[in-house]
Amino acid sequence: MPDIGKYLWPKSVAVVGASSDVHGLRGRILEIILSHPFAGKVYPVSRSASDVQGLKAYPSVDALPEPADMAILIVPAQYIPAELERCGKAGVKAAAILSSGFAEEGDAGKRMQEDIATIARRYDMAVSGPNSEGFSNMAAALCANFSPASDKSAGPLIPLRPVGRGQVSVISQSGGIGFAFVDRARPRNLKFRYVVTTGNEAVLEIADFVDYMLDEGETDVFLLLTEAVKSPEKFKRAAEKALRAGKPLIIGKIGQSKPGSRAVASHTAALAGSTAAYRAVFDRYGLIEGRDFDEMLDLAVGFLASGDRMPAGRRVGICTASGGAGIWMADACAAAGLEVPILDAATRKALDAYVPSYGTTQNPVDSTAQGVQKLGYAEFARLVARSPSVDSVIVVITARRSAFLEADLPKLKDLARETEKPVFMWTYTLPAERTVEILNEAGYPLFTTAHGCAGTLQKMADYRAMRALILHQVEAAAPAPDRSNTSAVLVAAPGVICEYRARPLLAVYGIGSESAGQLVHSGDEAAAAAQAISGLVALKVQSADIPHKTEAGAVMLNLGGAERVRAGYEQVLDAVRRHAPAAYIDGVLVQAMAPPGREVILGIHSDPTWGLMLMVGIGGVVVEALADVALAPVPLDRASALALIGRLKSAQLLGRFRGNPPADVGALADLMVKLSNFATDHAERISAIDLNPVIVHAEHNGVSVVDALIVKRDDRSAEGGSAAG
Amino acid sequence: MPDIGKYLWPKSVAVVGASSDVHGLRGRILEIILSHPFAGKVYPVSRSASDVQGLKAYPSVDALPEPADMAILIVPAQYIPAELERCGKAGVKAAAILSSGFAEEGDAGKRMQEDIATIARRYDMAVSGPNSEGFSNMAAALCANFSPASDKSAGPLIPLRPVGRGQVSVISQSGGIGFAFVDRARPRNLKFRYVVTTGNEAVLEIADFVDYMLDEGETDVFLLLTEAVKSPEKFKRAAEKALRAGKPLIIGKIGQSKPGSRAVASHTAALAGSTAAYRAVFDRYGLIEGRDFDEMLDLAVGFLASGDRMPAGRRVGICTASGGAGIWMADACAAAGLEVPILDAATRKALDAYVPSYGTTQNPVDSTAQGVQKLGYAEFARLVARSPSVDSVIVVITARRSAFLEADLPKLKDLARETEKPVFMWTYTLPAERTVEILNEAGYPLFTTAHGCAGTLQKMADYRAMRALILHQVEAAAPAPDRSNTSAVLVAAPGVICEYRARPLLAVYGIGSESAGQLVHSGDEAAAAAQAISGLVALKVQSADIPHKTEAGAVMLNLGGAERVRAGYEQVLDAVRRHAPAAYIDGVLVQAMAPPGREVILGIHSDPTWGLMLMVGIGGVVVEALADVALAPVPLDRASALALIGRLKSAQLLGRFRGNPPADVGALADLMVKLSNFATDHAERISAIDLNPVIVHAEHNGVSVVDALIVKRDDRSAEGGSAAG
Repeated sequence: MPDIGKYLWPKSVAVVGASSDVHGLRGRILEIILSHPFAGKVYPVSRSASDVQGLKAYPSVDALPEPADMAILIVPAQYIPAELERCGKAGVKAAAILSSGFAEEGDAGKRMQEDIATIARRYDMAVSGPNSEGFSNMAAALCANFSPASDKSAGPLIPLRPVGRGQVSVISQSGGIGFAFVDRARPRNLKFRYVVTTGNEAVLEIADFVDYMLDEGETDVFLLLTEAVKSPEKFKRAAEKALRAGKPLIIGKIGQSKPGSRAVASHTAALAGSTAAYRAVFDRYGLIEGRDFDEMLDLAVGFLASGDRMPAGRRVGICTASGGAGIWMADACAAAGLEVPILDAATRKALDAYVPSYGTTQNPVDSTAQGVQKLGYAEFARLVARSPSVDSVIVVITARRSAFLEADLPKLKDLARETEKPVFMWTYTLPAERTVEILNEAGYPLFTTAHGCAGTLQKMADYRAMRALILHQVEAAAPAPDRSNTSAVLVAAPGVICEYRARPLLAVYGIGSESAGQLVHSGDEAAAAAQAISGLVALKVQSADIPHKTEAGAVMLNLGGAERVRAGYEQVLDAVRRHAPAAYIDGVLVQAMAPPGREVILGIHSDPTWGLMLMVGIGGVVVEALADVALAPVPLDRASALALIGRLKSAQLLGRFRGNPPADVGALADLMVKLSNFATDHAERISAIDLNPVIVHAEHNGVSVVDALIVKRDDRSAEGGSAAG
Repeated sequence: MPDIGKYLWPKSVAVVGASSDVHGLRGRILEIILSHPFAGKVYPVSRSASDVQGLKAYPSVDALPEPADMAILIVPAQYIPAELERCGKAGVKAAAILSSGFAEEGDAGKRMQEDIATIARRYDMAVSGPNSEGFSNMAAALCANFSPASDKSAGPLIPLRPVGRGQVSVISQSGGIGFAFVDRARPRNLKFRYVVTTGNEAVLEIADFVDYMLDEGETDVFLLLTEAVKSPEKFKRAAEKALRAGKPLIIGKIGQSKPGSRAVASHTAALAGSTAAYRAVFDRYGLIEGRDFDEMLDLAVGFLASGDRMPAGRRVGICTASGGAGIWMADACAAAGLEVPILDAATRKALDAYVPSYGTTQNPVDSTAQGVQKLGYAEFARLVARSPSVDSVIVVITARRSAFLEADLPKLKDLARETEKPVFMWTYTLPAERTVEILNEAGYPLFTTAHGCAGTLQKMADYRAMRALILHQVEAAAPAPDRSNTSAVLVAAPGVICEYRARPLLAVYGIGSESAGQLVHSGDEAAAAAQAISGLVALKVQSADIPHKTEAGAVMLNLGGAERVRAGYEQVLDAVRRHAPAAYIDGVLVQAMAPPGREVILGIHSDPTWGLMLMVGIGGVVVEALADVALAPVPLDRASALALIGRLKSAQLLGRFRGNPPADVGALADLMVKLSNFATDHAERISAIDLNPVIVHAEHNGVSVVDALIVKRDDRSAEGGSAAG
């Protein structure tokens, strides 16, 4: 394993391709490094100059007075493999490749990128890029990049009055975006530790740097930006490690839209992958997704300022002196999914002493300007934070002038020290610089958008809850099914395993009943089978060549009476013969109609990046009309299955509905766990499983798996996609 | 009608309650007025001082050397009515009442507020407030308020280099929020004309000021903020006038959430009203809703900078030199509902000359840093704007340094002059002040959030399309139904008009068939009626006492055969007798089952603020599970009805679906227009109408109204709410 410490904390740096022309990137990077008080040695390497920006230059990396710990390579792409090889031979242990023109430029570039990986492996070097923009180590004052955000004139590397006590690190595939975080965070006084850009990730990926920084223990909050995750298992390991350590990973996933993912493909030659699958993985590991700079920085500010003090729930108390601004904040809280409950009587009574009659103590508590003059923001917030009705407090202020807050500073500090509940500040005017400092000094995050403030609180409450859920997961003590036998049957089965063959396989894992109905081969047999069943029956043609039965007319439902069953038998076979004349037909399944209940779709499919995912959706029409499905990587436990169901917009269809009792959601969750276990155990053979529909009966009455289909993985290709029954 | 010109453009202002103590509000307001170069006369009125802040003070408003054009009243609430009366008698034509403690404070306050309205009417005075924060007239340099945003030190009233050529006015019920717009807009260089705060709106409402400013013709974009609209008809008139004039109304509606509307009630003692109804009215009149300061200011910047040049469609071309930032913008565009199509071959060929091989000309066009160095932003944007594939262009820049843009300035100005398509700029770093100026000078809006930039373009495209739709509306040439007879029947009918009585009334307007089925009074009659119908029948108990038939068990569907119909007759009557023993039953309706199709819910209900609204939703389950309904005020024309259907999330259920042909959406729209005409004609008698369900058949096969119910307005109270069949 290469040593990322050599990359981030080098004692000596070679800049290969360094130039004295500071208008070009090759000159700018050296200029920026030299402008900061980096204590290590810097060696310009230049084939043409013996002096670069006042430093002695060396003709080659192997001509340095000592092997440099790391090298920055900024020469044209075609020279990079040879240059990296030279670094390896010379004992350089790390390299940042800034040049473009690799995998994003076609096959030749792709091969060069593979060469880079091979060379790095050979010499056990920590290599980032190509197509990266370098990195900054703020603590070491090493800015090995050419971003304007690293200009000396842009401001100090470490803010004088940082928000909170912790540090934040940025790890971004995109160089421009990575350093823009630093630029945009300046008015927020975030203390950055590292900014690392990873580019095409030929060797080191975002997860490698996360892993290093978690071990180091100096980064408290991560801002990640990814176009595509290359090594999903590595990513999941790092994510779980961060979750256990309680270090939030705030992540931006770019390329989620159609034009965006098209651009990712041409930008770093990576597959953007399914947005839904990425979301599912983020949810599973407690990553917090942000959709833009502001949302992600708001989250970083919130987490840094709050430290371990995260909201225990979603109930917020709002303190305001402006009625209108307080109402707008209440709307923002509700939109974010927070609650703004009416406060308890004791708290309201305590507030009454300060709030004039034209204000209100409900919540939002509108003290009016007069009330806050008497109370001060600190005392106001303290009274509300004390209420047992709330888990956190938002104080609406106008931060245009600092004088009033300045006078309140000692009390604000006391409150920040003592409160168990996060207290956030939102200013509806633009803040004066001094106001931000005062609040940061006192220990409060300051937000300028109501939605950013409310959204951050909500996501912090979610993070806390999600973390508790995941850390307390217990392995379901399922009876160990006979895996090896199932596996052998799977190997022998055809590519499309239709219902009558799939049922016994799934039943081993407790999914559905082993035999539901009878396979028949004539109209008379069908009629006889139907007669043995009380009530109406379904007929389903069984054929590995017909995975999409409904489209092929291969299903008839609700048949009663020998005559209709016999006629139905001929009808489904006729339809199938017209639709797929060459299909080999195993027979027709005669099955009792399932007792009534809520219709659910359960499935497994394979995502090109993340592998097998479990999918759940309610009601055929709702799923189709609104694409309302929820995804999770397998395996998943019961609590996660219940959480997944709860994430459906149409989840209330499973509750008390149109006079029906609630559906047996527990049984549905159990079924999901079993299906996820089946998929996990046989992942290497499964491309897709459809249980469509599953009927969820009323509480305590369980579920009926009405149809089942398994599509095996095509060994000749990494096939994805879902099948439909 | 009072003269708002006297309010906004007074030649002389009396400050009643003025004080020399500039730490109090009564001193601050005078201090602020005097600090700006207002050319008119200012008269302090004080009962205790003869000199206030160096000006001669007068003991009363009737002791001034001349009648002041307007008075600012900032004395305790209980003195306000007498003071306003004195103003009226003295010939003062306008007044701003800043004091709090009126309708928001209970019944006594409410009565005082009514007194204010009476006095204002008596003297025909233009009165704003109470509980307002005054106003600013930037052109007159009159800042009659105590907001920190009006401090001389906060910056010039009119920016040196404004964005665009137009002016924006703020009209806000909330004082704090109203002036915060000015504060937060400072870095954006918006040229404000007026900021007016209206408080409790005892007399003048937001719509009155909009109307005045439209007549004046100097305001190009409006930023409105409302808690509750008091006079809906006045509001609608002003909104339509603005739409015809092409002056966008950007509106924030606060109090949309449960806690928010609770706070509105206690803040200005107004009903926040139904959010959905507000949205429907905004949609109908082309108002553009913004959810926070930033979104509203982004919209104002976009409209001001673009003038009449609005995007003709939703297709955007993205120019970027940072791959990652371009992708993020593409995601933001897709999220906003914009399209980012691959560019045409000719445009891509023209770009190829500048874009290196590791960039891309697809869209986003990633020129890489190298490409943009060659091209410059102006030429880059010009090439993309020329593409027939796009309606607008977004240029992704880094505005941290201004030098590069400065060099490009002449070309940028040329492009801004010549282009027919809006060109927006988004900076992913924070902009230098000089960059904003350069871009504003050249005529470009600059955005700092990708979502704000994309969302503004999308809403501008929507505004253009919506305006065209509304301005080209033609009155449907419906055959004038016999209104007076219908009206007479309505008057005579019971409060709940069940189906067999409602059908003939609705049929006059072409809604459903006059007679669908037969009213019977015995099982035998029912069986006979069923026999006369080929196919299955429905039975429905008809009773004015049972509006909710399904809950009462008063409906049976799909009955066939005399025996089952006879038994069904007894069954529904039994159920009804158990459910509502005292109900008077008119009979049982025997009806043919409707041919199959897509199930739709159509209804009319009464909103407490906006009156009768038409509601449409698709599919019983979808409506109930996801509350996916769309609302519009009545009347509405065919194009608006079609647009309303299109707004449903589940609209695709009416398209080609599960092998079914598309539904007859045109016939549904026609039915909606007819229902809206019925409701409009008889608005004073209607509380609710339910057509639930309507079955929409396949294209060209029309609709079947399967059930109908009219609930009359209860004359004793302003009843709202919907009924269900």
